[in-house]
Amino acid sequence: MSDQQTVINFTRGVPADESLPVQELQVAAQAALEKYGKVILQYGKSHGFLPLREWLAEQHHVTVDEVLAANSSLQIIEFLCFHFIQPGDVVFTEAPTYDRTVTLLRRHKAKVVGIQLEADGPNIAALEKALESYQPKFFYLIPDFQNPMGATCSLAKRQRILELAEKHNFWVVEDAPYRPLRFQGEPIATFLELNPQRTLFMASFTKLIGPGVRVGALHGPVEVINKVAKIAEDTYICPTLFSQGTVYEFCRSGLLEPQIARIKALYAPRLQACRAAVSLHLPDVEMTRPEGGFFLSLTLPEGVTTAAVLKRATTYNLNLADGEAFFPEGGGARFLRLPYCALSPEQINEGVRRLAAAVNDVRSGK
Amino acid sequence: MSDQQTVINFTRGVPADESLPVQELQVAAQAALEKYGKVILQYGKSHGFLPLREWLAEQHHVTVDEVLAANSSLQIIEFLCFHFIQPGDVVFTEAPTYDRTVTLLRRHKAKVVGIQLEADGPNIAALEKALESYQPKFFYLIPDFQNPMGATCSLAKRQRILELAEKHNFWVVEDAPYRPLRFQGEPIATFLELNPQRTLFMASFTKLIGPGVRVGALHGPVEVINKVAKIAEDTYICPTLFSQGTVYEFCRSGLLEPQIARIKALYAPRLQACRAAVSLHLPDVEMTRPEGGFFLSLTLPEGVTTAAVLKRATTYNLNLADGEAFFPEGGGARFLRLPYCALSPEQINEGVRRLAAAVNDVRSGK
Repeated sequence: MSDQQTVINFTRGVPADESLPVQELQVAAQAALEKYGKVILQYGKSHGFLPLREWLAEQHHVTVDEVLAANSSLQIIEFLCFHFIQPGDVVFTEAPTYDRTVTLLRRHKAKVVGIQLEADGPNIAALEKALESYQPKFFYLIPDFQNPMGATCSLAKRQRILELAEKHNFWVVEDAPYRPLRFQGEPIATFLELNPQRTLFMASFTKLIGPGVRVGALHGPVEVINKVAKIAEDTYICPTLFSQGTVYEFCRSGLLEPQIARIKALYAPRLQACRAAVSLHLPDVEMTRPEGGFFLSLTLPEGVTTAAVLKRATTYNLNLADGEAFFPEGGGARFLRLPYCALSPEQINEGVRRLAAAVNDVRSGK
Repeated sequence: MSDQQTVINFTRGVPADESLPVQELQVAAQAALEKYGKVILQYGKSHGFLPLREWLAEQHHVTVDEVLAANSSLQIIEFLCFHFIQPGDVVFTEAPTYDRTVTLLRRHKAKVVGIQLEADGPNIAALEKALESYQPKFFYLIPDFQNPMGATCSLAKRQRILELAEKHNFWVVEDAPYRPLRFQGEPIATFLELNPQRTLFMASFTKLIGPGVRVGALHGPVEVINKVAKIAEDTYICPTLFSQGTVYEFCRSGLLEPQIARIKALYAPRLQACRAAVSLHLPDVEMTRPEGGFFLSLTLPEGVTTAAVLKRATTYNLNLADGEAFFPEGGGARFLRLPYCALSPEQINEGVRRLAAAVNDVRSGK
């Protein structure tokens, strides 16, 4: 696996193939069709499959009217754009942030303002300064094990951001696909828990069950949920109920908890391997220290750009992702995301060894 | 079933619950997860599940690069809007047309121009006249068993429309969800068959397998397919591959043909019952005479509006759909769509009997 000819990809944040619960989903699909066949193969409400919404509502201690289930949480971001954004409207994101969200915001002609992200969440002074110039429609955050940085927002910063949201009248859009994948430490209260009237919370089964089921959910005040449901109806009438019914049966029958335990046991050693490999091979490089999720990230040494390392790395059969794409307003020339979940500890160590070789080549002018 | 207290719905074009192949999909889902589990639960190409695209390409005698599979054909219309439409751009539709398409076109700020539809397709003189004033990006048509009218476009009109498309440089968007459901008569060549370079053809499994699988497909030139695939990727990364894998196994294993035969045997007598009931109870009302699909439609007598009949019908426990919503530029005051597929022949007869009572009430000034 770690021979030097095999290509290693530190590129996309995909789940490991071996994490996908194929047999359990066979059972769940059978049960869903058996029990709800005539419902999940028919048209239904654009809010999503009712039993799944009820299950989600219970998980998050909200009412079922405050939950919408859709074909992926990414598409929910598009629905929020249709609801909130007119051309020229301002949206804040962390900088760096999830590049696909920026693509959608720009498709809707929003002005995207990036707020500098630190290891414990957005820089509050930068946020306050940006609020002097802009009235954002919402602030899009990934508070837990952030993509791409691996940062987790502290409780104090969450509280302060919500104070500012109240004061300046903007929504917090909390994207939380990685939150259930905490390998160590204690969970921090969600924005949704801290202030459900200011928060639109997105959950996803992509990182827990698998991307191919395409089930994400939005939790928020009923008025917003109903408006998003109308937008969803106009887009696709109703989501893939067959898939939502299967996911519901998976959850209801108690398969989700052991699945999460299994993938945490799979991924935690990979994060550990990634941290150890960076410490070993790149001792002078700054890295984030996530306690869960899919990513850690590096700041390459002064004078060493990600673009140069990315190019050099291909000569070592190592594929890296561009850093600048994660920064909505530029920057990130030395930023490097390392998605470790889909690689074995051996591949991770070998990948970081190759990365160090590429960094050293660039540093020495090769 | 036909007692006068039971509400009868001539409202939405939904498949009959008894048409949904629950057990066959159980088999297909098992096989799909067994064979392709790690693929259909993972991320994949935004073009859709490759074996399904290959199967569709073979069906339509095109190459796999000319096929994209998405989460419903309605959403493909939205992708086409993102690709083709800037605010103020013109799109032609039949008048009447599918109301959800008009909603999406308007969401993208297109100017929608309706071309009068007749029993054998669009009025060509009206089309030629509209082309004197407008340069449409595309002409959206449902050539077979049109929703809501039940009209089927003649071969001569298809050929003439394609000549005009060449001359005036617009695309034909051919929406064909009902096409496989021909109960009698011979199929007419598709626009795709007649001119694949001018046609974007949409197929759907909604009316054949079930809406809840949410699988639709686009066939067109590679350049357009690839641009739509990028828009799809930006929207949801990839479609619901779990669902597409299941639909593929359903088709590949030979379940689709008997399923289509079964639903044609279910629906044909319903169309027959609807025609007979209209002839019996509303002998002086003009109706379309479709040879398949989900709908026939009526033109109510002079002076009798659909709005008035709709209101009166509720007193007979009969729900009807508004006619005017199908006309993008007004009209349709006496237009009434009758979706017969989800009702038994007895319900259909009773529903039309109640409709006649409501029409007579309105006519006599009640």
